[in-house]
Amino acid sequence: MKTRFVLINPSHAGNVGATARAMKVMGFGDLVLVAPRWANVLRREETIQRASGALDVLTNARIVATLDEALDGMTHLCATAMTPRDFGPPTRAPREHFAALLGKPDSLSKNELLTQASVGLEANSASKPEGVAFLFGSERFGMQNEDVYRCHVALCIPTDPGFGSLNLAAAVQLIAYDWRQALGGFAVRPATPEPQQADAAAVAGMLAHWEQALADIGFLDPASPKKLMPRLNQLFNRAGLSPEEIHILRGIAKAMSQQARPVVEKGSPADTAARP
Amino acid sequence: MKTRFVLINPSHAGNVGATARAMKVMGFGDLVLVAPRWANVLRREETIQRASGALDVLTNARIVATLDEALDGMTHLCATAMTPRDFGPPTRAPREHFAALLGKPDSLSKNELLTQASVGLEANSASKPEGVAFLFGSERFGMQNEDVYRCHVALCIPTDPGFGSLNLAAAVQLIAYDWRQALGGFAVRPATPEPQQADAAAVAGMLAHWEQALADIGFLDPASPKKLMPRLNQLFNRAGLSPEEIHILRGIAKAMSQQARPVVEKGSPADTAARP
Repeated sequence: MKTRFVLINPSHAGNVGATARAMKVMGFGDLVLVAPRWANVLRREETIQRASGALDVLTNARIVATLDEALDGMTHLCATAMTPRDFGPPTRAPREHFAALLGKPDSLSKNELLTQASVGLEANSASKPEGVAFLFGSERFGMQNEDVYRCHVALCIPTDPGFGSLNLAAAVQLIAYDWRQALGGFAVRPATPEPQQADAAAVAGMLAHWEQALADIGFLDPASPKKLMPRLNQLFNRAGLSPEEIHILRGIAKAMSQQARPVVEKGSPADTAARP
Repeated sequence: MKTRFVLINPSHAGNVGATARAMKVMGFGDLVLVAPRWANVLRREETIQRASGALDVLTNARIVATLDEALDGMTHLCATAMTPRDFGPPTRAPREHFAALLGKPDSLSKNELLTQASVGLEANSASKPEGVAFLFGSERFGMQNEDVYRCHVALCIPTDPGFGSLNLAAAVQLIAYDWRQALGGFAVRPATPEPQQADAAAVAGMLAHWEQALADIGFLDPASPKKLMPRLNQLFNRAGLSPEEIHILRGIAKAMSQQARPVVEKGSPADTAARP
């Protein structure tokens, strides 16, 4: 399946560069500009600056004069329209439309199944589109009606009803993200090893160690322990301790007891000897 | 539940403005800047230009000297870290973490349930956090280790392994979008009325009308119809016709027949009389 991003009459060079970057971080590289305001927009300084390394996307981008020329090989056209229209393709949120388009019935809500039906995917779900094009209108005027009318769907990013002013490159970023996620997504590279969980016996052993230590330092009265140990047990359960953390907590208990016991002999030579 | 976006040492005024805009379109308004490069960044021309109307977010934004001052009232701290670290909070994709954080077991995959357990939400899922803060590092150096270490999770936006260079404001936009969606999302305002589906009887009636018309214009040979009508039936089934479209197709069939029948009398006065 091919994916293409089409900017119709983009007027800000910065947005073209930011679009290239937004596409590339999500693994897309096919960019077409239809009649941009600046003929040399792909080489302008602001474009290159905002592309921030996504220069191959700019290098491979095409500039064409009409929308028709931008759509070769594309079979499923997605308008992105923030302005309601009283005629045209059905309006859908990107996430639900992508699930329907890729025929993922397991993940579909009732509303999404409705989506599938109303854009004619139901009878057709075996055949995924060969080429999906996302069309973005100009920053100032959005998409023209006749361009929206030829699309299969009008994608509307759900924004605050009181402030729907989404920047062009930000819209590209969100669509590219949702589409990449729908296609399976990239893996998150874990920065840290998956934390291991200490088992209940290890937690209980550590708590017994602490119970002794807390008595040693005079915080826990064994004759009247109240709910102190169950409270600590709950705290440590919520924290989900790892074996390493059990080790640290046992070390703390040991140090508490060691510090506490010499107190009996306070002022004796043993006191200073214990802390070189 | 409160939501706050915290930019630590932002160096580009444009990114501060674009962050305000990205937040506002997703309905968030609490922005704190920790020791920005420019003390007057909230009033700089580029900031205001890129904020594009989200001026109230800038007006209400706070500038503080330290991260501590930015975190009052926040109970769940999310680092955003693109650089792997060998120590610190667990690394999670935003979408799965938000589902776990808000305790949506219905929508959780096995992996997400694992997430819940490893960040300690399992025993705790009844109590949602009172304040969620999203921390973003500077454009050049990202977040410092000690700032990441105090967080509950390190959110990693899944990007192309070969190009993870996400713009700061684009990262804010994606996090704000996923978080808003996890909180229930804004409604997509349908631009067009939900298409009604014509029932099977209406489709069959229209097809009978077409069968007659196609015979009238000489395209269908009733003595040897082959698979023409079943093919058209399949085509129209895939299209998911509306009652209005049935009406249009019947009108076309009628016009075909009307145009065809006078042909018998071609050249006669009836021909021209039929088309005033």
